[in-house]
Amino acid sequence: MAATVNPDLKKERENSSFDPNKITSFLYGGPEIVKKKRELESLALNDPDYQHEDLNFMSQEQQYETFLKKTLLMVTKVRELKIDVADRHFYRSAVIGTNPDPLGLHVGMFLPTLYGQASQEQKDKWLKMAENFAIIGTYAQTEMGHGTFLRGLETTATYDPKTQEFILNTPNLTASKWWPGGLGKTSNYCVLMAQLYIHGKSYGPHPFMVQIRSLQDHKPLPGVTVGDIGPKFGYDSIDNGFLALNNVRIPRENMLMKHSKVAPDGTYVKPPSSKLAYGTMVFVRATIVNDSATALAIATTIAIRYSCVRRQSEMRPGHPEPQVLDYVTQQYKLFPYLAAAYAFWLTGQTMMSVYTTSSSQISKGDISVLPELHALSAGLKALSSWVANVGMEECRMACGGHGYSHASGLPRLYANMTPGATYEGENTVMMLQTARYLMKSYNQSLQGEKLAGSVAYLSGVQPVPAAGRTRNMLDLGVLCDAYRHRAARLVHEAAVQLRNERQAGKDQPDAWNAASVDLVKAAMAHSQYFVVKNFAERLTDSTLDSSISDVLTRLCQLHALHGLVTNSGDFLEDGYLTGTDVRQARRHINALMAKLRPDAVALVDAFDFPDGILNSVLGRYDGNVYEHLLEWAKASPLNKTDVHQSYHKYLKPFLEDNRAKL
Amino acid sequence: MAATVNPDLKKERENSSFDPNKITSFLYGGPEIVKKKRELESLALNDPDYQHEDLNFMSQEQQYETFLKKTLLMVTKVRELKIDVADRHFYRSAVIGTNPDPLGLHVGMFLPTLYGQASQEQKDKWLKMAENFAIIGTYAQTEMGHGTFLRGLETTATYDPKTQEFILNTPNLTASKWWPGGLGKTSNYCVLMAQLYIHGKSYGPHPFMVQIRSLQDHKPLPGVTVGDIGPKFGYDSIDNGFLALNNVRIPRENMLMKHSKVAPDGTYVKPPSSKLAYGTMVFVRATIVNDSATALAIATTIAIRYSCVRRQSEMRPGHPEPQVLDYVTQQYKLFPYLAAAYAFWLTGQTMMSVYTTSSSQISKGDISVLPELHALSAGLKALSSWVANVGMEECRMACGGHGYSHASGLPRLYANMTPGATYEGENTVMMLQTARYLMKSYNQSLQGEKLAGSVAYLSGVQPVPAAGRTRNMLDLGVLCDAYRHRAARLVHEAAVQLRNERQAGKDQPDAWNAASVDLVKAAMAHSQYFVVKNFAERLTDSTLDSSISDVLTRLCQLHALHGLVTNSGDFLEDGYLTGTDVRQARRHINALMAKLRPDAVALVDAFDFPDGILNSVLGRYDGNVYEHLLEWAKASPLNKTDVHQSYHKYLKPFLEDNRAKL
Repeated sequence: MAATVNPDLKKERENSSFDPNKITSFLYGGPEIVKKKRELESLALNDPDYQHEDLNFMSQEQQYETFLKKTLLMVTKVRELKIDVADRHFYRSAVIGTNPDPLGLHVGMFLPTLYGQASQEQKDKWLKMAENFAIIGTYAQTEMGHGTFLRGLETTATYDPKTQEFILNTPNLTASKWWPGGLGKTSNYCVLMAQLYIHGKSYGPHPFMVQIRSLQDHKPLPGVTVGDIGPKFGYDSIDNGFLALNNVRIPRENMLMKHSKVAPDGTYVKPPSSKLAYGTMVFVRATIVNDSATALAIATTIAIRYSCVRRQSEMRPGHPEPQVLDYVTQQYKLFPYLAAAYAFWLTGQTMMSVYTTSSSQISKGDISVLPELHALSAGLKALSSWVANVGMEECRMACGGHGYSHASGLPRLYANMTPGATYEGENTVMMLQTARYLMKSYNQSLQGEKLAGSVAYLSGVQPVPAAGRTRNMLDLGVLCDAYRHRAARLVHEAAVQLRNERQAGKDQPDAWNAASVDLVKAAMAHSQYFVVKNFAERLTDSTLDSSISDVLTRLCQLHALHGLVTNSGDFLEDGYLTGTDVRQARRHINALMAKLRPDAVALVDAFDFPDGILNSVLGRYDGNVYEHLLEWAKASPLNKTDVHQSYHKYLKPFLEDNRAKL
Repeated sequence: MAATVNPDLKKERENSSFDPNKITSFLYGGPEIVKKKRELESLALNDPDYQHEDLNFMSQEQQYETFLKKTLLMVTKVRELKIDVADRHFYRSAVIGTNPDPLGLHVGMFLPTLYGQASQEQKDKWLKMAENFAIIGTYAQTEMGHGTFLRGLETTATYDPKTQEFILNTPNLTASKWWPGGLGKTSNYCVLMAQLYIHGKSYGPHPFMVQIRSLQDHKPLPGVTVGDIGPKFGYDSIDNGFLALNNVRIPRENMLMKHSKVAPDGTYVKPPSSKLAYGTMVFVRATIVNDSATALAIATTIAIRYSCVRRQSEMRPGHPEPQVLDYVTQQYKLFPYLAAAYAFWLTGQTMMSVYTTSSSQISKGDISVLPELHALSAGLKALSSWVANVGMEECRMACGGHGYSHASGLPRLYANMTPGATYEGENTVMMLQTARYLMKSYNQSLQGEKLAGSVAYLSGVQPVPAAGRTRNMLDLGVLCDAYRHRAARLVHEAAVQLRNERQAGKDQPDAWNAASVDLVKAAMAHSQYFVVKNFAERLTDSTLDSSISDVLTRLCQLHALHGLVTNSGDFLEDGYLTGTDVRQARRHINALMAKLRPDAVALVDAFDFPDGILNSVLGRYDGNVYEHLLEWAKASPLNKTDVHQSYHKYLKPFLEDNRAKL
């Protein structure tokens, strides 16, 4: 059968106002990078060695095995193909899609921790083995009883000056390491975070290099209990593990000693700054913002293409059934998340570029920018992952019943991406970190200090609203002002609330807790303001082709207006916006959606996800949904025989017995 | 190990202000029913015949087999135990939990359709077989290309007067039946919905009794292609199926002829009313409202108990880590959904009782109440299932990382319950049905007609707000008034919007589409008003013990206030509420949460779900979470051996090769 494109989708592409390749270039950083990306993706997707049955037809154990096999193969091939470090992620994402892989923590946490926290002698000892996968490591921090709150970790590393060793212990059940990826079955090493004790004194959590399995037969070493934590919502492709240690001794040299040090006699040397780890956190959180953008981009690609192929109901008696995307309610479900995908994509880029700039400052010893960056990144991580969670599910449900089938790719996408709201700092805790920085800055500004960077706008807050004037609610300047006013006001209100709680007799911790809902609200508004402002600023790029700056401006307007009407109370409460403004905003949204409608498919095509990464029958580039839905179903396990074995085992005797009794 | 209760949970139960059994009685309809419920649940949960490995450790195919086996056993046991029809659901839910079962459609749709739509002769012919499970049927309506829009169904039943048969056909791919539960592998019969054609003329969808598999060997009959549609997000325990028919002939007598009829010569007799099917729909939607309440009740039970067991972070330096539920942000995540669970529980009860009352009216030929009931039930189904979806996920994420493990029970709960937003009428379509009735009623009231029932408040709408006065935002009367005003205003605004679109030159279908976002908003406000009002009305029950009416009142206030601050723009936009009112509302929420905090565990205990139904390590009644988390993990498939087989297959050669190259 020739790969003809579904005529509805074909028409969509013919009618769009711009060339999606231009936006692809804008999103990925230029045509050369897009070219490289496509080459590497195609190399991976056309490689027969990576092919396998649909993951959705496998048990969890089979999925783990499949991914272990694929990932090891990928390591070997990346080496053989000499793919540049900077380009590997394109190849990798084509091989593994949005699934985590058993070596993910080795590459993403174990190696970076060695780079960042091992001394030169330690690097000389371990890096070559680790970089060449002669050992496989993971990063064992989270415990059964403690996640985001690191200081609460219970695993102990007690220094024994007599033997110059650390004695590692899991003092109780909740101290068991729990969740680290690749720990259950794959890794033979790990960086273990444990509370350091010297001469009975606690020095807080430190990283230790620990071998957990034999290099000969992969059996757990003496004193080590290790295993898989069992099946999860998603992450079927990876062995999240548990680990308990019973008097495991490691040499003193196994504490990673670039920053803190323990001398042979047990003398402890403090790290130069406790804020140094912030840099890595900012990087990881920027990655999660990127992941959130990717998740929304994939979900909207699937849902928008399918909504052009799917025809349903009767809008007008006697006329053909319309494409589902012609329903304004469907546009209202999908377009705001399309806009959010773009907004977070650009937010992640800005965060990465700020991180790079500040990294070079930090390497020169200037860490002044870190607290602000750290606080901002926490809020953006939380905001983007929350929105992505809701958006992926909105997209799934917008695909009706078929969205619920694994054929759509959406359930797996959601199950694999939703942990972003929990890992690397639970979202509410993240928002409260941002809020803490906002309160500190706000108080500084009250004391006359001039604020800079992302919180500069808190200086000289004017909580008095500018009422009474008419506004053009499509103007991005007007919208940014409104978001800024709202954020400043909510920061002010949270501070007032905090003060009131103190004045009512609560101590600081209780007052903070009592005001915490308002504090989260303020941090959310601050983060949303940043995202809207950043989107608007990116549009001022003078190199932007006008055909794409027009459509991107519409997306930015939609993003800002949708957030505004969804949270309209925040803007109305002090009279900053009027009911008329909000009604205007709603009318503008309708008009913008009508304008975006013919460009919707081109806007998702521009994300440039090949079918092999989308993994969705509904989101196929060619739109041949229904044929492939049937083909996919026929290949599924229950259809291996016309009459399933369960008939002979259970159904036949049951039916015969019932018939006999009639 | 003695089953001691976790001390934190024990203390929670000791400190609650009321006896949870009193609320259990209130929720289930009296102590006798609760007694019966507990007896039947315990009978099922202690029956060794129903025991099996954890479902989360099984492949989808194994889960289907397990449920087929269990369900057939249940049919036999229910018969042997002579369990009353009215009580069977207690026994059933203990056997299957929140999982669908392969006979679910036989009992829930196939039999009821025969009761409701078969003529007496047809009942005589099929009912005995069906009731005694000598045949197993399903209800085949949804097609690959059409779901909610029934008139779009493409399967044809063409009458052949020569042979007095219907010829059934699946004229194209999208006409394949798709999704019916139990269709793939289990059923040998189905009620097929097909477009009736007589002498080339179409008469719309009608139900036909069709045998699809042989009663001898279960093979598909000639002309029948049938199979499973493949794995889904959830519903692993059931074989949702597809079905294509190729010139399958059935006798004329197989059209279900209680309402419409086809005479031997092809003469068509119309049904007395097209609205008769509304009754069943109301019933099914009330069931979904109940399901939504159950889903939220289970999710909050798990999350609230776990939040009392889990201790985390340092609120106050040097003090023990607090229970997670002591964080106000955690309360703000969970308590509104606890309140919503109660709100929807009571909404479902009211709907069922209205359905019962109206059924007897309908059976007397009075169908006047049906359109209103139908419209109201559509909105309530959509509202409750949407809130349940968001709430289940909020509860899961409130359990942090462990919520993501299948050990928590929450991912499976979500995956099994989320289809409620899609099946039996996609939610947005449902809201627009409600909106259509609201517009009709609103226009009638403009023409001076007096409205009754749930829309009576639309008569004489006064869109002018009552501003300027101070209100007690805790007063349920004030809150109901505010919800009523908002609903009336949004209905008015949607009507204005619709009129404006018409006046701007759009025809009715285009105007309706253009106003549809506002129409959904109005229908949502109408539905929310009903839920709040119904909750408040149920509290006026004079038989309520004061200890429980106090706590239920707090839940009702919280439910109303939370909806108000979440949608504060709706109340502020026309000045009906002031910024001060909304700020008051937020303060009241904080105070209510503090008052509910000591009763939270008792309030979820009152839902009375045994551990065997919760299926959650985190939500266990005894709170012994961590021990069982480890025990559960150790039993999972990847831990059958210390060194997984994949090591020998893939990891060993990879590591050895890399080591050799060092």
